Amino acid sequence: MAEKVLVENKQVIFKGFVEGTPKETDLQVVVSATTELKPPKGSGAFLVKNLYLSCDPYMRGRMRDFRDSYIPPFVPGQPIEGFGVSKVVGSDNPTFKPGDLISGFTGWEEYSLISRTEQLRKVTPDGDIPLSFHVGLLGMPGFTAYAGFYEVCSPKKGECVLVSAASGAVGQLVGQLAKLHGCYVVGSCGSSQKVDLLRNKLGFDEAFNYKEEAELDAALKRYFPQGIDIYFDNVGGDMLDAAILNMRIHGRIAVCGMVSEKNLSDPRGIRNVFNLISKRIRMQGFLQSDYIHLYPRFLEHVISYYKQGKIIYIEDMNEGLESAPSAFVGLFAGTNVGKQVIRVAHE
Amino acid sequence: MAEKVLVENKQVIFKGFVEGTPKETDLQVVVSATTELKPPKGSGAFLVKNLYLSCDPYMRGRMRDFRDSYIPPFVPGQPIEGFGVSKVVGSDNPTFKPGDLISGFTGWEEYSLISRTEQLRKVTPDGDIPLSFHVGLLGMPGFTAYAGFYEVCSPKKGECVLVSAASGAVGQLVGQLAKLHGCYVVGSCGSSQKVDLLRNKLGFDEAFNYKEEAELDAALKRYFPQGIDIYFDNVGGDMLDAAILNMRIHGRIAVCGMVSEKNLSDPRGIRNVFNLISKRIRMQGFLQSDYIHLYPRFLEHVISYYKQGKIIYIEDMNEGLESAPSAFVGLFAGTNVGKQVIRVAHE
Repeated sequence: MAEKVLVENKQVIFKGFVEGTPKETDLQVVVSATTELKPPKGSGAFLVKNLYLSCDPYMRGRMRDFRDSYIPPFVPGQPIEGFGVSKVVGSDNPTFKPGDLISGFTGWEEYSLISRTEQLRKVTPDGDIPLSFHVGLLGMPGFTAYAGFYEVCSPKKGECVLVSAASGAVGQLVGQLAKLHGCYVVGSCGSSQKVDLLRNKLGFDEAFNYKEEAELDAALKRYFPQGIDIYFDNVGGDMLDAAILNMRIHGRIAVCGMVSEKNLSDPRGIRNVFNLISKRIRMQGFLQSDYIHLYPRFLEHVISYYKQGKIIYIEDMNEGLESAPSAFVGLFAGTNVGKQVIRVAHE
Repeated sequence: MAEKVLVENKQVIFKGFVEGTPKETDLQVVVSATTELKPPKGSGAFLVKNLYLSCDPYMRGRMRDFRDSYIPPFVPGQPIEGFGVSKVVGSDNPTFKPGDLISGFTGWEEYSLISRTEQLRKVTPDGDIPLSFHVGLLGMPGFTAYAGFYEVCSPKKGECVLVSAASGAVGQLVGQLAKLHGCYVVGSCGSSQKVDLLRNKLGFDEAFNYKEEAELDAALKRYFPQGIDIYFDNVGGDMLDAAILNMRIHGRIAVCGMVSEKNLSDPRGIRNVFNLISKRIRMQGFLQSDYIHLYPRFLEHVISYYKQGKIIYIEDMNEGLESAPSAFVGLFAGTNVGKQVIRVAHE
């Protein structure tokens, strides 16, 4: 019988269910656990070393004790989980061999034992594409932008598009796809640094810092004197209400996310719903998972755009699992600039 | 030169712009006007005797001094206008001859001079179909139900359908079309008399009086333990919010009307919009006028259903122009039972 190889396994533990905005102290980085670097024989599982972990706003929903969602809550006392890029280091599954790179759900820890493989993708290393992009541009956020823009927004060349949280993981790609589609694109964001990024790096036609606008309605009228055809909504709340007021007839709203905490815990309510009738607005919530059949086409298109230099992707990279709690919490204060990723280990 | 034939012309005058719920005193019935029963020569216009006038909730929007809508406001000091069934009594237009019956926009008065003919339809008398149905079952409300149900709700056999204001001009047809489509249909309404009508005359599977429900959410959970696939929304506000909470994944909401005044003047806001994402709900405002190409098919289907006894249509008929202000105002208190019509003159 072979000797067990045990390694220390740093983990980000979910301390318990959260009310309101998550705080750093809701997560705890521990090194108490040890893990064998080989999966149990006959388990069909495999062990991965996590390289990159993705911080995504939807994860907040899993911090609540609410089971009637499309995804179950995190388990108190266990590491949280999310999208990551990982390397197989030991395997009892012939499909996943040591050295393989994979992208999909993993634990917030150095090493994870993976037994569910349905939603995993193997990643072929490509010198032109950072591995971390597989949780961003080429992962769930990028695909959310792609499916949401093309499948939910029904865009037409020349239309006027508003994107909120526009420099975020999803928004930055929505805006660039809209530009490539021939649309006029305005981004809303929360700092002058992000405004600069949107205007000068990401190619948006216009951008504004919503925190500096006394009246969102007035801001939208300034950038959209003829009205908005498409609003890609990543924030909900007041911006959604102001956008509804400024939509054109037959406008479309893709409801994608509501990163602002106050929209969840104390929703003020959307007051302009009546305008949906007179303007015949279509407002549609969506999840990227419903469009997964389009994933291969998405990868092909977006990789091609990226390699041609037609799109860029901005990441906010934190180093080390120790930085994970602050990186995650920063999402809800908008401290990240671009897609928030945690580098757990170098490749 | 022929002698002028002048008749007294009773009119319902719009006294001025209205805040809040319209009151009877916002309208005034006068007999001061006289009208010549012949249109001016060379005008291309024609003179009609109005037989039936339609009371519709959308008309409240025209009582406000708000010009940014799909239809202009009423003119203070002039008769209000709306859909009606009328008989041509004098004509300078070769297409419309004395004796012809027409349906379309007309004034709230005994006689109207009509010069815009784009939206008029000639009505062929049919002994089996009451003339007044041309402002109800076969008019704008009926077509709203038809276009909204088939084109906006994307119904499938076996789906669960909620209709609010379910015994009203639109709702009663939505529910019957949904039943004919093989759906399970529940109607919400505002009196026990209407509950009885929905259950025992209109063939709804279930019906409830929302005024007797302490919690709309609990009421919907009682009638839709598996959730709602389609909500045909005629009221907005709290019912819309409760319905969103109870929608099934990929549910559809057709936003058709918001008859409850408080939804307009002091909207509390829709608080459950976040659920649009997790449940991938499509919420769409619409106007029947966008589907007008389907009108001939609608007439054919609905007339056939009616003649086969597969659908019925309940009208609330008021007698005489004098009753018009109270009939109109009653819409917003829900005093009408079925489609509210005013008979101005016998055929």
